[in-house]
Amino acid sequence: MYQVEVRQGSRLEKYSVPAGYSLLKLLKEKGFYMDSPCGGRGFCGKCKVRIVKGDMAGSQCSPDEVGHLSFIERKGGIRLACRVQVNEDLTVEVPESGQRDAAILTDGKSDVALNPMVVKRYVELPKPSLDDQASDVDRIEKALKAPGRIHPAVMRDLSETLRAHDFKVTAVFFDQDIIAVEGGDTSDAKYGVAVDIGTTTMVGFLMDLVTGRQVDVYSAINPQRQYGADVITRTDFTVENENGLAVLSGLVRDEINNMLRTFQQRWGIAPDRIYHMTVVGNTIMMHLFAGLPVKNIAVSPFIPVIARRLELEPWQVGLNMCPSGRVTILPMVAGYVGADTIAAILASGMAERDELALLIDIGTNGEIALGNRGGVITCSTAAGPAFEGAHIRYGMGGVKGAISKMRITEDGIEYDTIGGEPARGICGSGIVDAMAQMLKAGIVDATGRMRSAEEAKTELPAGLASRVKELDGKPALLIASREEGALDDIYICQKDVREVQLAKAAIASGIHILMREMGVRHEDIQKVYLAGGFGNYIDYDHAADIGLIPSELRSKIVAIGNAAGAGAKMALLSKEYMEMAEFIRHRTSYVELSSRLDFQSVFVDFLSF
Amino acid sequence: MYQVEVRQGSRLEKYSVPAGYSLLKLLKEKGFYMDSPCGGRGFCGKCKVRIVKGDMAGSQCSPDEVGHLSFIERKGGIRLACRVQVNEDLTVEVPESGQRDAAILTDGKSDVALNPMVVKRYVELPKPSLDDQASDVDRIEKALKAPGRIHPAVMRDLSETLRAHDFKVTAVFFDQDIIAVEGGDTSDAKYGVAVDIGTTTMVGFLMDLVTGRQVDVYSAINPQRQYGADVITRTDFTVENENGLAVLSGLVRDEINNMLRTFQQRWGIAPDRIYHMTVVGNTIMMHLFAGLPVKNIAVSPFIPVIARRLELEPWQVGLNMCPSGRVTILPMVAGYVGADTIAAILASGMAERDELALLIDIGTNGEIALGNRGGVITCSTAAGPAFEGAHIRYGMGGVKGAISKMRITEDGIEYDTIGGEPARGICGSGIVDAMAQMLKAGIVDATGRMRSAEEAKTELPAGLASRVKELDGKPALLIASREEGALDDIYICQKDVREVQLAKAAIASGIHILMREMGVRHEDIQKVYLAGGFGNYIDYDHAADIGLIPSELRSKIVAIGNAAGAGAKMALLSKEYMEMAEFIRHRTSYVELSSRLDFQSVFVDFLSF
Repeated sequence: MYQVEVRQGSRLEKYSVPAGYSLLKLLKEKGFYMDSPCGGRGFCGKCKVRIVKGDMAGSQCSPDEVGHLSFIERKGGIRLACRVQVNEDLTVEVPESGQRDAAILTDGKSDVALNPMVVKRYVELPKPSLDDQASDVDRIEKALKAPGRIHPAVMRDLSETLRAHDFKVTAVFFDQDIIAVEGGDTSDAKYGVAVDIGTTTMVGFLMDLVTGRQVDVYSAINPQRQYGADVITRTDFTVENENGLAVLSGLVRDEINNMLRTFQQRWGIAPDRIYHMTVVGNTIMMHLFAGLPVKNIAVSPFIPVIARRLELEPWQVGLNMCPSGRVTILPMVAGYVGADTIAAILASGMAERDELALLIDIGTNGEIALGNRGGVITCSTAAGPAFEGAHIRYGMGGVKGAISKMRITEDGIEYDTIGGEPARGICGSGIVDAMAQMLKAGIVDATGRMRSAEEAKTELPAGLASRVKELDGKPALLIASREEGALDDIYICQKDVREVQLAKAAIASGIHILMREMGVRHEDIQKVYLAGGFGNYIDYDHAADIGLIPSELRSKIVAIGNAAGAGAKMALLSKEYMEMAEFIRHRTSYVELSSRLDFQSVFVDFLSF
Repeated sequence: MYQVEVRQGSRLEKYSVPAGYSLLKLLKEKGFYMDSPCGGRGFCGKCKVRIVKGDMAGSQCSPDEVGHLSFIERKGGIRLACRVQVNEDLTVEVPESGQRDAAILTDGKSDVALNPMVVKRYVELPKPSLDDQASDVDRIEKALKAPGRIHPAVMRDLSETLRAHDFKVTAVFFDQDIIAVEGGDTSDAKYGVAVDIGTTTMVGFLMDLVTGRQVDVYSAINPQRQYGADVITRTDFTVENENGLAVLSGLVRDEINNMLRTFQQRWGIAPDRIYHMTVVGNTIMMHLFAGLPVKNIAVSPFIPVIARRLELEPWQVGLNMCPSGRVTILPMVAGYVGADTIAAILASGMAERDELALLIDIGTNGEIALGNRGGVITCSTAAGPAFEGAHIRYGMGGVKGAISKMRITEDGIEYDTIGGEPARGICGSGIVDAMAQMLKAGIVDATGRMRSAEEAKTELPAGLASRVKELDGKPALLIASREEGALDDIYICQKDVREVQLAKAAIASGIHILMREMGVRHEDIQKVYLAGGFGNYIDYDHAADIGLIPSELRSKIVAIGNAAGAGAKMALLSKEYMEMAEFIRHRTSYVELSSRLDFQSVFVDFLSF
């Protein structure tokens, strides 16, 4: 056994660890948040730690690590935790978590006629006597004309509540069922939470169901991320590890409990006054949250356990809210078009109108929907999370310090960061800008090849040419440098260009195939709804320039923000929208791109810029 | 701390106990079954143990104990565990438990048209493909035309089951809901259990829901009994002890789990093939089983939490059966007329016929029902458990060695015991015989006074007179003696006569008041159903002789055995009878004797023999 001392900010822990134990595994087990989108396979380079004490601090890195660590980093003892096996006593420094400062888009359409599933009714009951010996349950069910409707869990404290409040109580209904009986008149305290579980980020909205007002927002990185950036890596984790499903379920549920606790503490709301939660997300996120196996979604023919709406009681998913309240997972379309897409369609209103609309949600996957009130067809593209910064060497989410806007000028490069802070990396909208500008400036050609430093010298203005460098033997453009005040030298490298190329081709192909499937042309489409944080920040012209969105549609783009979250809120606030979500599910069909013979050739067509 | 060594048969345990700790409390906590119907208050005299080692073994008994222990017992170190405080190291011998040999009546009417709530349907589903990507839940719900009906708990293993069995499965319905999906065709394995939770004894019936056949019976003493013979003592226990309700709930649930395990092991039935359980018992037993507070039932105006039918899932009451199966507590009438009475009315058929019938269920309480298809009125009499042998000095339940029949002859006394074993005590039917015979022989007069030994000598035949002795300064009749082969000297004492007098007056008054309430005479009543084990064994003439049942009705008596259990079985086997139980509840009203101004005078009228 070796002693490992771990420091993170003011936290200091000591552990005894058997020889050969993985440092990343230890850190995850002990609850240190470690970003490792590749799932510990050594190729994302995100799980950096500093070895402060131990012989290995000064020793050679593994070949895997060399590509991810700068000379300075290596000298300073920085290593990838996934590559470190504990074979001596160590002192390790873990960077402070950036988990809590995610600036996820939390707005979106939500002007809704208030009519929630949760209804409160105050009643004053006749008191029992020898002439009126009705049971407590009968007494209240009769007064409320709801025979047989009290939830068994409510019965335990019912008698006490009635007697402590002189038989004046407030009954809480969820649809037909009585899910709580509270002493006195509590009609003014009625809360619900809408949750959007993204593969990368989670957002929760605390809603006042009396006024319809949004009280608070909570956002966090999806803690499952440490087991893989994408749904496939996480699915593999559940297949390869006996308790994998329970681990991933537990992580997301714990984070939702953090959210609930935060809301409760900030606003002084008792846990049992939060009666209803609506949950959206992609189909795999919904399964993991519900504790349902995902392995059949990952392999052809990609079958989920469930796609219809699922109503659970909070104890079934371990949530600390009204114990007999409800958690509603909104309906899904298929294995790769989830409740988030249904919610986004709901929020866009496209399924209620005659005009033909295209909805594009570029998150960790790219889901596309095309249709109107007559019906909607959807597909999912394996766009990958490039536009969320994953698989991009210096990519990061839309958090403080991310380069979100970028321009190439004759003299060099200008950029903006989120929060105006020193640059730490580059997020989706910055990547789109960079790609479009690099094309325009001739740094990248139509096939996606970057000019070499050599070529740049002769063909680009000097100010720009000097920024074309070399990384791993391939060209790379220096976007921001330490010298200029950034926290790191930040490049877009050849591999990044290829990632974007694949992602934009996937989305463009999806749009093309849906249009072909429905037999419509660009001029038939009246609106293009761009959902997700990305949609709010990107430059539409640049998106069209790189071919992410057909240029014929660029003038029809409307950014609708976090449409999935907005749909979840709408279903929480209104029974009608809850039913509309079901209606949308029945009107929506799914086009499996992988089974289309035309997909490969369309995809290749869209690969070039 | 003192060391207490406890022996019971081959079991040997050692405990460290703080000074002054109650020995009874210790034994109960450590899981030794101790009969203590008075709840440890020192007046039932049932918790006898032998102090084998320790100074107190030879020391003086407390005054409480003297009345309960014979000279021989005291010399042999026998003490009442409830009176012993541990103030030295002790070795204690606990008698072997008689708990498992209860010979409770388990028969009763049950010729029922088979139509259980649980239905199985075998289906062969179309297999998924890229052209048919419906979710597993949709696939099966669609095939069964049961949209939205799969229980969430079934979903976790659904995909695995479908694929492991080539999409050929059996769906198990409870009413409209799909509570299980099993691989292959399992239509021939479908079980349910009907449980009658008596205050004193519990009976369970394993029923084959495919054939309607009764497979097995399990009976046991209600383990709550160690916290009091009657419902009031147990209610007090839940009020006086913070965890009292949980303790009593846990005991009865554990015993039902013992029952389930026994059935499962004896017949090789997997726990999850038992889908439905019906439960009957008095209202307090039902509340304790369901984990609902009983304290308001005990005080005027005697309000239960619930009286309607209660459907629970097995996890809610911690039972080891099909996890998404159902447990149905049958409806109750009021705080002191429970599901057992509704079930007995159901089993008797009285609520379906025109003829007017009287139903008497003499268990730990005495419930009475009078009516026909036009409606039923009920009452509960505080008869006490005298006829179950409690509060009777040598009383015991109807188990092996109990005197169940008795005749007084000129020469003395003849008796029969259950199982023909040496007499250990006297059960209900024996007590009725004894009382009637003592009246007839002039040992007891019409006021209930026993002749003294002195008087007996002059007024009774010598053979009989010699058996009239004295106990605690009061007359007592020696029914059986060690000399004659009994395991103990068994008496009926003056106090026993008073107990029986109170009990029979309570029941006779109840019958009288119901008849008065309905305005009927003896000749209007066409049948008298005598429910419970007691009803099968007693001599009807003797019951009429002592005034327990009006003598005008003696020719109309029909013993219907364990009618409560029979009713529970009927509701298990047939949806129609389940609904009939609800119908009976709505047609049945309750007469609160304690609120009747005429009750006291009627009661006094019926006190004399």
